[in-house]
Amino acid sequence: MNVAVHLPFAADFAPPPTAADRARWDASDRAARPARLARLRARMAAAGVDAYFGVRAENSRYLTGLVLGDGEDKVAGVSGWFVVGRDEVVLFADSRYTIQATREAAGARIEPVYGDLRLRWPEIAARLGARRVAVEAGFVSHATWIELAEAAPDVQLVAADDPGKADQPGAGWVEADRATKEPAELERVAAACAVADRALADLLPEIRPGVTEAQLAWRLEVLIRTGGADGLAFDVACLAGPEAALPHGSPGDRPVRSGAVLLFDFGAQVGGYRSDMTRTLFVGEPTGRDLAIYELVAEARAAALAGVEVAVRGGGPLPTGPEVDALARDVIVAAGHGDHFGHGTGHGIGLATHELPSLGKRAARTALPSPTVFSIEPGVYLEGETGVRIEDLVAVDLAARRVQTLTNFPRGIVVVGR
Amino acid sequence: MNVAVHLPFAADFAPPPTAADRARWDASDRAARPARLARLRARMAAAGVDAYFGVRAENSRYLTGLVLGDGEDKVAGVSGWFVVGRDEVVLFADSRYTIQATREAAGARIEPVYGDLRLRWPEIAARLGARRVAVEAGFVSHATWIELAEAAPDVQLVAADDPGKADQPGAGWVEADRATKEPAELERVAAACAVADRALADLLPEIRPGVTEAQLAWRLEVLIRTGGADGLAFDVACLAGPEAALPHGSPGDRPVRSGAVLLFDFGAQVGGYRSDMTRTLFVGEPTGRDLAIYELVAEARAAALAGVEVAVRGGGPLPTGPEVDALARDVIVAAGHGDHFGHGTGHGIGLATHELPSLGKRAARTALPSPTVFSIEPGVYLEGETGVRIEDLVAVDLAARRVQTLTNFPRGIVVVGR
Repeated sequence: MNVAVHLPFAADFAPPPTAADRARWDASDRAARPARLARLRARMAAAGVDAYFGVRAENSRYLTGLVLGDGEDKVAGVSGWFVVGRDEVVLFADSRYTIQATREAAGARIEPVYGDLRLRWPEIAARLGARRVAVEAGFVSHATWIELAEAAPDVQLVAADDPGKADQPGAGWVEADRATKEPAELERVAAACAVADRALADLLPEIRPGVTEAQLAWRLEVLIRTGGADGLAFDVACLAGPEAALPHGSPGDRPVRSGAVLLFDFGAQVGGYRSDMTRTLFVGEPTGRDLAIYELVAEARAAALAGVEVAVRGGGPLPTGPEVDALARDVIVAAGHGDHFGHGTGHGIGLATHELPSLGKRAARTALPSPTVFSIEPGVYLEGETGVRIEDLVAVDLAARRVQTLTNFPRGIVVVGR
Repeated sequence: MNVAVHLPFAADFAPPPTAADRARWDASDRAARPARLARLRARMAAAGVDAYFGVRAENSRYLTGLVLGDGEDKVAGVSGWFVVGRDEVVLFADSRYTIQATREAAGARIEPVYGDLRLRWPEIAARLGARRVAVEAGFVSHATWIELAEAAPDVQLVAADDPGKADQPGAGWVEADRATKEPAELERVAAACAVADRALADLLPEIRPGVTEAQLAWRLEVLIRTGGADGLAFDVACLAGPEAALPHGSPGDRPVRSGAVLLFDFGAQVGGYRSDMTRTLFVGEPTGRDLAIYELVAEARAAALAGVEVAVRGGGPLPTGPEVDALARDVIVAAGHGDHFGHGTGHGIGLATHELPSLGKRAARTALPSPTVFSIEPGVYLEGETGVRIEDLVAVDLAARRVQTLTNFPRGIVVVGR
């Protein structure tokens, strides 16, 4: 049985990142890019392709350094798209982005491309000596694929994504490489977790019956955005009482009530890397039903984490995603709530909020990568009644025999607003 | 010559939307959905397809009512994807979204689909009697297209998007329909414009030399988000002096300086509809060079708008996108700055920030739709020196002989921080 914990203070957690941290991370990225490209080129060689055609903003940032804001890919057109050849990296930019691309993507040749990719593609491919090109098929639109195929019929396109892995959020080559994290990547995820921990701690005094979900979500966002983050990882979810049964619900004008749960699912972004944490708090006196569900979810979370820890202590191999999922799920199923836990147990996180590895029933049946970081987030959702989810980020380094929970806000019974 | 205008106050603009406005807009959407579906079904019939397969969040909202937050499509998996059959609308939702989908998409049948679309597709298509399906090829990934094609080889897939229109941000069927706006859609764009007008007016006293771009961008966001908006339309751009030469730059820790321009490009979101406005302000005494460029850009903007107004007064036809673009561009080219205006003159706006109609050189050579709303936003960018853009949203209703500028913040010479 969890006991009610003392309310934390922001000062309990790591301080916000400094300018020196950020400069160090930027330098790490620049230093790491050749190795990232070398890994991709090894995949290219193994698959017998001359080039890799990418459109995903996270992959562009990882490989070239160009930073597009969240959602900016929707207005950027082809800007940010890139081609990795055997010797060269080409980054597309229209006139709106050429200055920025030149600044940020020092290792790439900036290619001015506008709405004329169809006309330009044969020449771009020829200049790279590309006859067979791997394409981010999970992200490039079918229309663009057809456009490229028709523009240069002699340049063969093959999928760099495995279309057979629909449960996995992008199972492409670069996504697979990104699942393994560099030290400076893990540092940024941890820094984003600390910003989020501090923000929730600072919010606690503002939580009282009558304040609305939307008001609290906004206040939490302000605390994150002014507390060291570059931005949110995703929109803050703040869900009171029965609304907590919506695993991806949005905050509304519903007031917080005493005697009900209050679920926060939120994350920060630091240097492009994201955090993700869910805490289900109790407003006023918890009900017996809510406490029982909370204990069950906490037990499921602990079971999944313990399974990972045992594997790491034993020197490996790491469990598969479906195995970690089963560890959490079995606890919930045994308690008769299997039907009330519909989503997977976790997901990798980094430049994207959801990335590989996937920890769900249908995830890859291969050992988790290392070093990596992923969420463990079981939940139980009773429609019209209540919902509980506890989500932590866990960094795993098998070689270093280390498992570290990066989200440090207390996960015992936290009672607020009384 | 523009004269320096009096600084506006928030109260100069329309008040924020009320709960009654929002209820009215929701009711309008519900009432309009059958007509929206009927238009799509007419396109389906004309193309000889039995069903339309959609993945784009804006289209899903338009046709079914399901609201996904910005960026939520990246973690929602297949949730929000939909199929419009001849008699039925099917909306996919995994367990995280079933409650929300049932609430918001009253006219749709909610189909629980997880990572198993491949397995489910043959049965879903069969139940709809679909043998030939139009797919949002500009938005569905190539991997998903292949997956569907292989899962049900007897169900023929055809592109509902025209892959030949790369310059147009989504030239699909529903995108084409969305370019024509209902009255309640235009009202929301106008409401979003007013929120943005008010926010910038409220920000003016905070602009002074020394404050940074990032600080001003954040403060403007706070004023928008607490001033009646549901969210931003896109990340606020605040660019000082030479940074204004980056048409899609991001605010940094650069301080505002006297004697230089300060460019804001920003928008609000109200009921899902967006605004988009750029204002280039002068901090302290304007330089002659900056004033001259400002006058040129203002003239280009006025020329484009006048062309639209003349067409509307004359009862039509409306000009094409390339024609409006040329009206603005010719002014800038004649002044010798053609190379410093690299982007298009404007874009449609609505549920997406950039949508049809497109007003660029390569846009469709057909008359603009009506009623509609689009931006007019010429700019001149001198790398390392300065940049000026003036962007307004213009609503056009040919039948009503009406052209209305929805962004009302003054567009004369606005001098701040002195």
